[in-house]
This record gives sequence, structure tokens and C-alpha cells, in this order.
Amino acid sequence: MHFELSAAQAAENIRSGLISSVDLVKACLQRIEDTDADIMAWVNLDAEQALAQAEALDEIRRKGLPLGPLHGVPVGIKDIFDTCDMPTQLGTKIHEGRQPELDCVVIERLREAGAVILGKTVTTEFAYSHPAVTTNPHNPAHSPGGSSSGSAAAVAAGHLPLAIGSQTGGSTIRPASYCGIFGFKPTRGVISRRGVLETSRVLDQVGIFARTLEDLALLGDTLGSYDQADSMSYARPRQQLLEGYKAEPPVEPNFAWIEMPINDLLSESARAGLAEVREVLGDLVEVIPAPKSFVKVIECHKVIHEYEIARCLKAEIDDYWDDISDTIKPKLASGLATTEAQYHEALTMVGGAENYFEEFFNDYDAVLTSAAPGEAPLMGSESGTGNPIFSVIWTFAGLPCLSLPVMTGDLGLPMGLQLVGSAEGDDRLFRTARWVLQQLEKNAEEDE
Amino acid sequence: MHFELSAAQAAENIRSGLISSVDLVKACLQRIEDTDADIMAWVNLDAEQALAQAEALDEIRRKGLPLGPLHGVPVGIKDIFDTCDMPTQLGTKIHEGRQPELDCVVIERLREAGAVILGKTVTTEFAYSHPAVTTNPHNPAHSPGGSSSGSAAAVAAGHLPLAIGSQTGGSTIRPASYCGIFGFKPTRGVISRRGVLETSRVLDQVGIFARTLEDLALLGDTLGSYDQADSMSYARPRQQLLEGYKAEPPVEPNFAWIEMPINDLLSESARAGLAEVREVLGDLVEVIPAPKSFVKVIECHKVIHEYEIARCLKAEIDDYWDDISDTIKPKLASGLATTEAQYHEALTMVGGAENYFEEFFNDYDAVLTSAAPGEAPLMGSESGTGNPIFSVIWTFAGLPCLSLPVMTGDLGLPMGLQLVGSAEGDDRLFRTARWVLQQLEKNAEEDE
Repeated sequence: MHFELSAAQAAENIRSGLISSVDLVKACLQRIEDTDADIMAWVNLDAEQALAQAEALDEIRRKGLPLGPLHGVPVGIKDIFDTCDMPTQLGTKIHEGRQPELDCVVIERLREAGAVILGKTVTTEFAYSHPAVTTNPHNPAHSPGGSSSGSAAAVAAGHLPLAIGSQTGGSTIRPASYCGIFGFKPTRGVISRRGVLETSRVLDQVGIFARTLEDLALLGDTLGSYDQADSMSYARPRQQLLEGYKAEPPVEPNFAWIEMPINDLLSESARAGLAEVREVLGDLVEVIPAPKSFVKVIECHKVIHEYEIARCLKAEIDDYWDDISDTIKPKLASGLATTEAQYHEALTMVGGAENYFEEFFNDYDAVLTSAAPGEAPLMGSESGTGNPIFSVIWTFAGLPCLSLPVMTGDLGLPMGLQLVGSAEGDDRLFRTARWVLQQLEKNAEEDE
Repeated sequence: MHFELSAAQAAENIRSGLISSVDLVKACLQRIEDTDADIMAWVNLDAEQALAQAEALDEIRRKGLPLGPLHGVPVGIKDIFDTCDMPTQLGTKIHEGRQPELDCVVIERLREAGAVILGKTVTTEFAYSHPAVTTNPHNPAHSPGGSSSGSAAAVAAGHLPLAIGSQTGGSTIRPASYCGIFGFKPTRGVISRRGVLETSRVLDQVGIFARTLEDLALLGDTLGSYDQADSMSYARPRQQLLEGYKAEPPVEPNFAWIEMPINDLLSESARAGLAEVREVLGDLVEVIPAPKSFVKVIECHKVIHEYEIARCLKAEIDDYWDDISDTIKPKLASGLATTEAQYHEALTMVGGAENYFEEFFNDYDAVLTSAAPGEAPLMGSESGTGNPIFSVIWTFAGLPCLSLPVMTGDLGLPMGLQLVGSAEGDDRLFRTARWVLQQLEKNAEEDE
């Protein structure tokens, strides 16, 4: 079925003329119609507009004009990324019908790559912690995670091969883990955030979803660019993730397993799954103690996030307080009450964490950890969209993170293995991740 | 000598560690010191700043961070492209010391590609027709052409392998021809003009210079991007010029030689050179009559250019009229006197020309023509920086144009063969151009 194609396969098939972009988009739209009543991944989907884009991209191919790396391939967009031709509503009724004038830079890069912007996926309110309507494609009684709920669920449900999300705490890695797909948050500053809802200047980053590691690399390579309008963007060459993905490690990579206090939060089945992975990797995994500062990082992350989001949402707080969920009201209040001094102190920890990890990755190719405490929580439970704690330290330090869907829990729901790489070592992280997947596959075959 | 390396060789040598970017930049600075007293290609060159960039790029390599396609390779920038760390003075004392806050998009793309921004090259006043100080590296008594005088001269003199210019009439193709190097103006809208002096919204385009066709492709591939802030930029995939350069034509390409009235302006030696090329290509060249509308296109180009530049320079005209050269005053006055109706009528011809050539290139791979009427005029002659007339029609129609340094005139000065391709057929144009170069080489060998 077309909708099951990976992005790489789809792009190749469209390039060679085996299928058209219209075929693929129709198949995706049908798949959405068949399954989205339960999953509710989409907040804005205009079939006519999507097919018109596909038609135009097919016409480009017929004319012999240049094709992009994602030519004709549909991508889903979290509803906090501005699109000039679709509303961008930020997951809140306060911004119902909000229509941006311009595309964000991510959309510019996608159009330049020949992608079809299929539609906007459900985000939690302001990409924060209040759960959205979307359910987990593996079991609708469970949460898909958040805040990139719709993007992760749509890719997992086979609605389309690729989607864009974001991560301020664990908003990409956690939903990827819960939905059983690949998720990636690149090094801080690789992808421009111009035209994306700002909730934290320091912590917000773009994240991406796919069903294969190769697709993640393919998509990631189209998005990176230097943009002076984004204060975190940097004027240096970007990664070539596909090159990293295809490269062989020169020697067997080595891994750090950090004994962090947060590991106490891991479920039984997550522990078991991680233990299995560690067994396969054997001596390549070194167990090391967590630096004491890790606990402080988690606190500093909270201070920065709350302080910044409360200021980013000043207009909404001032004029639409009653329309804000009770889930995030206390956090916004806490952010407003955070002093400049507390904020500045927390900011100093960012540089500290960056420095710490610069040295750290001289000795390791990747940190091996869990992408989430365990399987997806129940919809409507106290856990909401789940605990982002397993992403907070890496997001804070600006490191590239991957979630690999290689574990299954007691409830039969997927769980992600997280690999964390060095800053600007995104290529190497993909190389290492592919190697890990190969080892796990080899091991599974031997077990059979 | 390092300064003689092509950009592709230099990038490869830096990547492999054979030379450092600092080595290369030092060699280029030395070459400039040795030769620029006569040539005067540079308006702003800060050796310290250039070496600091090279040092930082070498450090990136030492650290194993990602390298860009132009990693460590110096590029010269026409002084109408905004740079956040060097003045951008637009070739006029009116803007002496003008320091932009932000880089233009072209500079963003270059920094992302790992290039060293070596300095700013001399432009004619407002990139228009008043000659600048720069001389022709082949003979200082002659003009290097304009308006991208310094960029063309610097590349031709071996100051560095790559430079950025612009073209509104023939400001890239003509100086490339006079200076004996490769010049390229891509399809309208491929490269963003945000942060570049605007002289004509419709006609201005970015152009590039190199000493090899491959280098031109390498540089061109780093610059293309979709940018909503540029009204001519388009949301479709960009060319892959290097792919085009490396590709074999599936069949022998065919060429149109158009019998244009402007051909009467060709010098004897240009005629002879072009006749030789046509002989080598033989039956592949079809001679066709010029459509009558070509004469009108040249008039419409003038109307649009004068009308628009007079409005772009409104502040300078109002407040600094006495500081404007006598060369361009009459043109600005003519632009101010152009009526809206004349302007709008001329604008309608743009679409007409685009449509005409869309059909035209179903039958031909490229138009074969001259890049200029002949060799470079004398400095200080009435011809100024030379006649751009051989570029006007293609610039007007938004077509990709290449100047290939394959002819020599009676004075011993170089002359360019111009190839013009279909809109968005930049890849194919590079493929065709390489094939032409091979045929000419083969022929030269047989003659020996």
C-alpha cells in the first residue's frame, strides 16, 4: 500500500515515475479517513489543497524541472508552525482561525525540498503540558504523548511518512517513544525557529518524526539552515545526516549508561528492555555515576521554561486567562513569580551543561538511556501526556537526541531507546544509531 | 601555488588536511598584495578578519565537526551585498562607511557552506554604468567590465577562486567575458536578494564568478534557496548544478544561433571566434531569425530598469544629487520621467518573453551567442564598462546564462562564449556547457 512506503521509497518511486505524488497523497488521505476518527491527529486537513500541491509537483516532474529530495512526499506539520495557506492555531481556542501571513522557515525549506504540506497536526495547548484530544494509534485508551501529539500519532498510524514537531522538554522524543516511531531533536540551533510559536528562546527546538531512521535523516537534511533571525542559529556548516546514516563506524562505538536518580522512575518493563539492549552491547556500555549537577539542571530547566513561556504568552495571560487550561495556569503563575535573579542563575547552568558535555563526548559516542519512563499513560490519567523528564537534561544542554522504537512493554505498547550525542555530532549519532539497530537485529535473528 | 587552486581542489585539500584554510587565505592575501596595486579589485579587505574566519574553520575541522561544501575556501563579495561585519558602500561616497546590521541571505548561505568571506570587491556606483577604478587583469589599460568589476577582476587575477556579483543588464556575463573567467547568472528567483542593494525588483539577479565551470556549479549549489522576502523567489526545488555538470547529455545537444540585429555590433574577432565555435559544433547549430519583439525587449528592459532604479535611489536623488555621477544622472532623470503607463506596458513584455522562451527551449538545449560585443574597451573610453546588450534579452526573460572563456580577440584579450538555457533548466545548461567545452578541447587537440 502506498501509505506504508517510507519517505525514501516514496521519493524514489515518484522520481522514477512508478507512482505519482497524487497517488501517494490520495492513499494517505484515504488512510487518514479510515483511521483518524479514533486517533484525531489532525486539526487542519484540506484534501483539495494537498492534492493541488501534489498535482503541481507531478507537473514539475513531467516538465523535467528539478526535483527535490522529498519531491511529492507528504509531511505533517505541528500546529505551532506558521503556514501562509492554512490556519495555525497553537492548540488553543484563543487563536482559533489564526492565519499567518508568512510560512515559517521550516515550511520554506520543505517547499524547497518538494514536499507536500499535507496539513496541520494536533498540538497540546501552546505546545505545553495540557493533553490534547489525540489518542495513541497502538491503543486509543492511551496517550500518544505530547506536545507533538498529532505529528507522532499520524506517522505511527501510517497517515504519512514524515512529520514536524518541536521539543522544549521532551515533546518529540517522548511521543516518538509512546507511538513506536523514530524521533529526532537535533543540536540546538541547527534548524531555524523563525515563524514557530516561541515558548522558550533558550529551550525550544524543532523535532522530527519518521518510521525509519533513514527517513529521519532525509527529512533532517532538508531543514537545517543558518538564520540570523533565530538567536540560537549558528553560522557554521550543517550536518549531513544521510551521510552519517550510511557511514560505517571506524571502530565499534562505545556508550555511557549514566546512573541517574531519575532512573528510579523507570517502569519494570522499561528496565527489562533497557537491560536487554545493554546485554547486546555488552562491554561497549560503560556505567558511570551521574554528576550531582544533573538534579540542578532539571530545576533550572523548569525555571527557564516557566519564566520564558509566561513572558511569551503575556498577551494571552493578560487578556484570555479564563481560556487557558487549569493544567498550565499554575505553571504560568509560577513563571510570572520567577525572579530575574532566579532566571539568570538558571541561565548560567546552560553554559555549564554545554561545557560538561563537550568534554564528556571525547570518551563516548553516545549516552544510552530511556526515551520515557515506560509505556504511554492512559488518556485522562494524572500523568497527562507523560513525564518528559528523560529528555530534560539533553534538551537543556542542546544535544542531539534520537528515540529508537526497539522495545515493547508489558501492555504491548512500544517504548523508545534514547541515544544522545555530542553537540553538532548529529551525523555521528545517526551512524551510531544505525549500528545499534543492526546489532539488535542481529541479536534478534540469533535468538530465533 | 595555493592561490591557483580551484575552489573544488581547495575544498578537497582542506577536507583531507593537505592544506589549511589559513594557508590558503594567506596565499590569497599575498597574491592580492602582489597584484592589486594595478588591478584595484578590492574596496574592503581586512586580513585579520579573514584569517580569523579561516582559523575558526580549521578549528571546526580539527574538532571533527561538520564541514561545508566550501569549507575554508575564500569568496569575494561585490560591495552591494550586506555584510554584518564589514561596511557595504554600494560604490558611492554617499554611503561611505555604511555598516549593515545583518548579513544578506547570500552571506548566510556562504557561512553555512563554510566559506571565508574574504572581503568586499569594487562595484560600479550603485551597480550601474559609471565605471569604477578596477582595471582588467589581462591589461590594466582596459576595463574589466561592470558592474561587478572587482569580483570578476579578483577571480581572474588569482586573488581567490570564487566571487559573487549581480546582474540587472549584463553585470556578470560581460565582466566574466572581458576578464576571461566563467560567469553565471541563474534562472530568475533561484537565489534570494534579501539584503542586496535593490536597483530593479524585476531585473536584479545574483551572479557568480569562477575559473572553472565545476567551481561555478559548486558555488551556485550553495546559494539557491526559497525566501518569501524576495518577491521573485519561488517555492520549488532548486537546481543541482554539480549533478548537471557531471551528467552526460543523453543525446548530442542542439543549439540555436539567433540572427539578432545586435549581432551587427560584434567586433571582427568576436565574429571570427564565434564562427570557429559554430564550425566545431557543425549541424548541431540551427540558425534562426530573431523574433521582431527582441528589439522591443531591449527598449522595455531600459524602461523597467530606469523606472525602478530611480525609485530605489529616491533618497539619494533627493538628498545627494550632486554626489551622483554624471554618467547615471541622465538615466535617473529618464527613469523619473518614465510614466506609470510606460512602466506597466514594459512589465507586460516580461511575461511575454518568459512565455516565448518556454516554447522555444522545447526545440533547443541552449542559445549560442556572444557574451559581449568583443574585447574589453579601454579604461576611460566612451564605452565605459562596455555594452551589456548581449545580456539584456536573457536577463529580461529570467533565463540562466553562462559565459565561457573560450575565445581570444585581436588585442590578445579574452572573450566569452555565452550559452543561454531554459528557465529552471540551469542543470541542463551546465551539462550542455561542459559538453561544449569538451568538443572545443577535442577540436583544439586535433588541430595541434
